[in-house]
Amino acid sequence: MLDEKILNVLRHNKDSYVSGEELCKLAGVSRAAIWKHMEKLREEGYDIEALPHLGYKLVAIPDSLIPSEIKWKLKTKVFGKSVISYRKVDSTNIIAYELAEKGMKEGTVILADEQVKGKGRHGRCWSSPSKGGIYMSCILRPSIAPNEISRITLLAAVAVAQAIRDLSSLEVTIKWPNDIMMGPRKLCGILTQMKAEQDSVDFVVLGIGINVDLPVKQLPKGATSMREELRRRGEKVTLSRVELTKRVLEKLEEYYNLMKTEGFEPIIDIWKDLSVMIGSRVKVTLAGKTFEALAHDINPDGALVVRTESGLLEKISSGDVIMVR
Amino acid sequence: MLDEKILNVLRHNKDSYVSGEELCKLAGVSRAAIWKHMEKLREEGYDIEALPHLGYKLVAIPDSLIPSEIKWKLKTKVFGKSVISYRKVDSTNIIAYELAEKGMKEGTVILADEQVKGKGRHGRCWSSPSKGGIYMSCILRPSIAPNEISRITLLAAVAVAQAIRDLSSLEVTIKWPNDIMMGPRKLCGILTQMKAEQDSVDFVVLGIGINVDLPVKQLPKGATSMREELRRRGEKVTLSRVELTKRVLEKLEEYYNLMKTEGFEPIIDIWKDLSVMIGSRVKVTLAGKTFEALAHDINPDGALVVRTESGLLEKISSGDVIMVR
Repeated sequence: MLDEKILNVLRHNKDSYVSGEELCKLAGVSRAAIWKHMEKLREEGYDIEALPHLGYKLVAIPDSLIPSEIKWKLKTKVFGKSVISYRKVDSTNIIAYELAEKGMKEGTVILADEQVKGKGRHGRCWSSPSKGGIYMSCILRPSIAPNEISRITLLAAVAVAQAIRDLSSLEVTIKWPNDIMMGPRKLCGILTQMKAEQDSVDFVVLGIGINVDLPVKQLPKGATSMREELRRRGEKVTLSRVELTKRVLEKLEEYYNLMKTEGFEPIIDIWKDLSVMIGSRVKVTLAGKTFEALAHDINPDGALVVRTESGLLEKISSGDVIMVR
Repeated sequence: MLDEKILNVLRHNKDSYVSGEELCKLAGVSRAAIWKHMEKLREEGYDIEALPHLGYKLVAIPDSLIPSEIKWKLKTKVFGKSVISYRKVDSTNIIAYELAEKGMKEGTVILADEQVKGKGRHGRCWSSPSKGGIYMSCILRPSIAPNEISRITLLAAVAVAQAIRDLSSLEVTIKWPNDIMMGPRKLCGILTQMKAEQDSVDFVVLGIGINVDLPVKQLPKGATSMREELRRRGEKVTLSRVELTKRVLEKLEEYYNLMKTEGFEPIIDIWKDLSVMIGSRVKVTLAGKTFEALAHDINPDGALVVRTESGLLEKISSGDVIMVR
């Protein structure tokens, strides 16, 4: 991409001017191309100063989920090597699923600033207001059986929780199977979808929605955002959606590779460290019935094991589980 | 459908002539419509005699996998209530999957006389020569978790095996998980595909390919057809693809309802009765490794349980298993 080439020359010469002539040489483009692509970059939100005798200087970079920003210094080999960004979509998962069906390769990431029909589990919707959220879907092609799909969900929860902890003071936790919580409030949701045969998965679309820089009034009941949680703590921090997206991709790749080489056990261990559920009393809603139990463990398939009031251990693979206070 | 109405009047008056006037009255259509649709029916292979003063008589019915034939006296409530037929397609599973994504309802059946890219498990192809085979895909929307998908595969194998036994002298057996065998030769294959979330299945496409009236030279190595097996036995039987398709649909619905009301155990019991594998020595190829073991049982999830040479019981959910002679 020509505009990425030009952009990267300016990035490498941050805080100084690059003459038009130099820029042509370094990016390997014509003077006319410079003009054209400079306009395109400005439209994308890059603030580029141009002075007659000095040349061009990159003054400010937008916090936009665009390929040039996500791919800049991204430390991954597969995740995010191909990025497609939208201002507004129905659902990034729908787009990713269609692309996966057409054979788009593992690690491809779909990003959007706004979702009109953001999807949650079981056909629920995921509130996805414009600007301030990260709405991303990632195409994976793991060599697993359909009954191992929970592994991807749990792995993703671990990656997102760790990324948020890395870049903020928020000590988020995981609620089984896939909600990232700040105390009792939900900060992030994960929706895993797959196409599969009876004994092998064709592809997985991993959808992640994170409430980053959103005011609480834009969010549904029970939800929160990183901005809101930092405000509660009296902290004033500039939140970069770009940096968080990159960190999530890096963590996803790290844990995905860990699972490939070491199996699922190390992921479960990290999951347990980040979970506050194990050892707590929970209310389980399963096939229309609701019962209380003690969250006992996560089994090797990623299912929640609870101890019921009669003392029996029961495996929960689906259904809703909430912690009882 | 107007031509189905006309056809059904003729069917109800088999072996006698129905005058044009009567036909108009009984089918509730105009004289012009009769003419038009009579031509359409003849194109579909119906032999309809027309005599000036007597009227119309249905002389012969084609053994074609067309909606009017499949739906005639079909004893189901859901399976095959909607039928879409093709002469030639890439793969009925691809069409059914696309329709399921668009919301097509449970029980919809896609049929073809020929498949150009018939699909088998793990991206293999399924030989689907023109005329003589049944190539069908059925849309299901079961309330199951993705790890219960084997249930649908095993249920389908039971339904197809039972349908073939009902309509012929062939005592077919099932080879885990989903091959219908006549001795060492394969007569039918089943490919289950699904779209699912982490803990719930959106829909299943059940693909069934049966070699009915095919000469053995049109089939790949290791495969056989009903015609060929009857020939070996010196039996001369007219094979009706239409009747077999209908019986498969009826059996599918019967077992599907049984599973809904009684759970999966009764299906496993029938499966075991039809299987010759349990108790036999098998060779398992799993994740690149091959080992011999004793086929011990089918567990409640539909996985094969084998006893390895070291005496341990091991669960096989995927991989290839062949019987050792």
